[in-house]
Amino acid sequence: MEVPLLVSDFLDRAVRLYPNKVAIVDGDRRITYRELDERVDRLSHALLDLGIERGDRVCMLSPNSHFYLESFYATAQVGIILVPLNYRLVAADHEYILNHSGVSAVLVDWEYTDVVDEIRERLPDVKHWIVAQDEGEPKEGWTSWNALLEGASADKPTRPAIGENEIVSINYTSGTTSRPKGVMMTHRNSYLNAYNMIVHNSLRHEDVELWTLPMFHCNGWGGVFALTGMAGTHVILRAIDGEDMMRLIADEGVTFACMAPAVLRTILDTEDLDRFDFKTKPRFTVAGAPPPAAFIERLEKELGWDFIQLYGLTETAPLLTISRPDANTEQEDWKRRSRAGVAGIGVDLQVLDDDGKPVPKDGVAIGEICARSNVVFAGYYQQPEQTAEAIHDGYFHTGDLAVWDQNESIHIVDRKKDVIISGGENISSPEIEDCLFQHAAVFECAVIGVPDEKWGETPVALIVTREDATASEDELIEFCRDRMAHFKCPTQIRFVAELPRTATGKLQKYKLREAFWDGDRLVN
Amino acid sequence: MEVPLLVSDFLDRAVRLYPNKVAIVDGDRRITYRELDERVDRLSHALLDLGIERGDRVCMLSPNSHFYLESFYATAQVGIILVPLNYRLVAADHEYILNHSGVSAVLVDWEYTDVVDEIRERLPDVKHWIVAQDEGEPKEGWTSWNALLEGASADKPTRPAIGENEIVSINYTSGTTSRPKGVMMTHRNSYLNAYNMIVHNSLRHEDVELWTLPMFHCNGWGGVFALTGMAGTHVILRAIDGEDMMRLIADEGVTFACMAPAVLRTILDTEDLDRFDFKTKPRFTVAGAPPPAAFIERLEKELGWDFIQLYGLTETAPLLTISRPDANTEQEDWKRRSRAGVAGIGVDLQVLDDDGKPVPKDGVAIGEICARSNVVFAGYYQQPEQTAEAIHDGYFHTGDLAVWDQNESIHIVDRKKDVIISGGENISSPEIEDCLFQHAAVFECAVIGVPDEKWGETPVALIVTREDATASEDELIEFCRDRMAHFKCPTQIRFVAELPRTATGKLQKYKLREAFWDGDRLVN
Repeated sequence: MEVPLLVSDFLDRAVRLYPNKVAIVDGDRRITYRELDERVDRLSHALLDLGIERGDRVCMLSPNSHFYLESFYATAQVGIILVPLNYRLVAADHEYILNHSGVSAVLVDWEYTDVVDEIRERLPDVKHWIVAQDEGEPKEGWTSWNALLEGASADKPTRPAIGENEIVSINYTSGTTSRPKGVMMTHRNSYLNAYNMIVHNSLRHEDVELWTLPMFHCNGWGGVFALTGMAGTHVILRAIDGEDMMRLIADEGVTFACMAPAVLRTILDTEDLDRFDFKTKPRFTVAGAPPPAAFIERLEKELGWDFIQLYGLTETAPLLTISRPDANTEQEDWKRRSRAGVAGIGVDLQVLDDDGKPVPKDGVAIGEICARSNVVFAGYYQQPEQTAEAIHDGYFHTGDLAVWDQNESIHIVDRKKDVIISGGENISSPEIEDCLFQHAAVFECAVIGVPDEKWGETPVALIVTREDATASEDELIEFCRDRMAHFKCPTQIRFVAELPRTATGKLQKYKLREAFWDGDRLVN
Repeated sequence: MEVPLLVSDFLDRAVRLYPNKVAIVDGDRRITYRELDERVDRLSHALLDLGIERGDRVCMLSPNSHFYLESFYATAQVGIILVPLNYRLVAADHEYILNHSGVSAVLVDWEYTDVVDEIRERLPDVKHWIVAQDEGEPKEGWTSWNALLEGASADKPTRPAIGENEIVSINYTSGTTSRPKGVMMTHRNSYLNAYNMIVHNSLRHEDVELWTLPMFHCNGWGGVFALTGMAGTHVILRAIDGEDMMRLIADEGVTFACMAPAVLRTILDTEDLDRFDFKTKPRFTVAGAPPPAAFIERLEKELGWDFIQLYGLTETAPLLTISRPDANTEQEDWKRRSRAGVAGIGVDLQVLDDDGKPVPKDGVAIGEICARSNVVFAGYYQQPEQTAEAIHDGYFHTGDLAVWDQNESIHIVDRKKDVIISGGENISSPEIEDCLFQHAAVFECAVIGVPDEKWGETPVALIVTREDATASEDELIEFCRDRMAHFKCPTQIRFVAELPRTATGKLQKYKLREAFWDGDRLVN
């Protein structure tokens, strides 16, 4: 018997089997799975009642909230396509994305109505303006989400016969100088990624997940489906704050969280942890960039919490690889554990050279990470040329450069467009960054290649120092020369106040390079 | 990107990522994933070299062994269909199955060549006779498995473009008076069942599984795929023996095992456990019939090991439901935990009345368990009528009768054909059995309906007493009348030396009934 793999399965199971369990903790609000299901069904009806049809696009612009979780399931079960927006983008970005995707209704958190109102006149396709807020009156020109629910049927809506290869969401990628591209995720992509999120993070029914990760980011790495399928509890976090996170971990018995390295740092920097009565030992899954090994060691040895590193992209739903202690990795091999790790079930991962051949598995040869898997997206929305550039010869080409070892454990060395080529040698900027991070005065750092008459390019390091520390340029260069091959060492150090990052914590090296390059390396 | 879900994925992942990890412990033999992969590839080539083609059927008749695990992957990757045979069947059963499925090559364990030789002349389709043995010379008329491997290429065989809905195995159901039916399992059935086996049993990379379950039984409940996908270690058990099991659990650090209730009893009956140095606390997943609550309590409270109850059928790959302590069930609610439990991800389970309507979720109303899911088989091999009887109106009809409660937790009350109808009332035989099990003298028992002039049917209990105990018929009937509605109580007790069981530990009540019925209720 073949039944389509539809993400609605995950909520259906939780509601049928655990109706009275708390699905969501959002501030003072506790929502059971039965209540969540009713709100989801009412929202589906409300959207249909507005004339929104199967295949239409609806966006969600919001920090994490119970509304956000509702929007995924309310759209999916009736075949409406959700466009989750990065709330860190500016109005002009939203204008482009909403018009490009042809969104007909905007669902917007109450704190983000202003940014939409700025561009309201330039959104000809948008017919409906719906604001998510539990308290107070909606701003003029906005329809209350909760009022819509009250006026809608609580019956289970009729579900159309959706195929598993239909699109469930379009997730626009962010953080580049080019226009955002709309990553089309199918039900099947999301479903099989959710299985891998459960399997490789050992998600259990008893898990309580703290939403340190924005739900817009690749549908919370598929966690909105994975955790719901196990009928775990979602603890909403609206904004990153060390105190809030620690309080919620203690009060709600959090057992699991996904995050960018910057969030992990915030957690580790929270002072005076003895104030909190932790009853659980949560496991943290980190992705984005590999965190310094010292972070992992501190998390596991000082707090006794578990660290997992994950690697993937919006285009891969996202889980491609995962790094946990296993037959190939010792528990205390912190450096190795900060790496991307090994492929998930059903992920054929390759590190390929420019001719499309696998590079030697020697931990030295650098190639591009490519993946063939059901988690690979269906294409960029209305951009067939960009799709063909990304998916060809049977593989999705990630643009990330890596080495792999004989056990196919992946270590990312750079973005393809970020690699530094000096005197004909490829230099991995993260390797230099790892080295600089060992210096006590270095708080953050980024290494980029800049034009050099003799070598073509030369590495330059941009450094944010710790508040109470200083270091000279010569001292840091010497520090590197004592520890690395000299051709790899930075030839300049620039001290800066902060580094530009994307919404998900990735360094935006192209912005740093702008000061050094004329244009041809600016594309990102 | 859509890539077919093929079970070869599971071994591919383990081999690529963990080549040097021990995949199989089989007696003194330890086989790494790299070695397993090479044996699998050589066997694929050997079968192809013999002229066996994609779509052809090959059987495996063997207790658990490393050969067995090899046979699954060697056939699957080149599209040959495996027919795993129940080694407890007699020669006439094998003759029927081999001819019905049109097997062209028999793979047979050295201890089972005689039973095949008995029928050799009556197997016109079989061209190749291959014997699995690591020591000694093959019997006359048999080709050595290992010699075939030595003569075959160790290269990865060319894999045809197999679709995920193609058949990977035909598993003949056993234990009925009617002819066995061939359950066609697709790659997709097996793949998604394997995910659910991992997810709902929390299988991990570190797991070491003791093969207390015969691999022929529904492909080891899909465990041959699930555990391999996580690159766990398979510890082979050739025959059920309490001493052997305890020694392997201690010596190999076993963390997981699947079994029938009779095997659990053997484990619990092993004496003087202090002899063993257990370093792990394994979890046991039991299916077949719900074990007495006292078994679970003893396992968890005395040994500190974990109990999981699973329910499913060969036709469902098999996982339909699972019972673990969760939001609906207290850890120490032993009775509830022995029940079938709640549906796995992607399993739409219903308890339906004769009109196909769900029965009330009140724990009282009895209906038939029906399932709509990707784990439901593709049909009975060359038996379209029987397939249509089993799968209709969108659901597979299991033939098992159950009640469910408001949380959709399933409690199986009987086989549809085993239910006792007395004076118009349905009587659940397991309810009477549960009651009788509480009596100190009862070691095993089975309750059946027998013809009765007044009531139509009346319950009769067949009892195996404990070696050191006795009880009279009157005493046991009184014992039941003190504890149950009188119409449900057995009106006769028969004391017997043993009860007939299938290879998987299920009572064969039809055999008991034969002594009481003329024929019309003998169909099973």
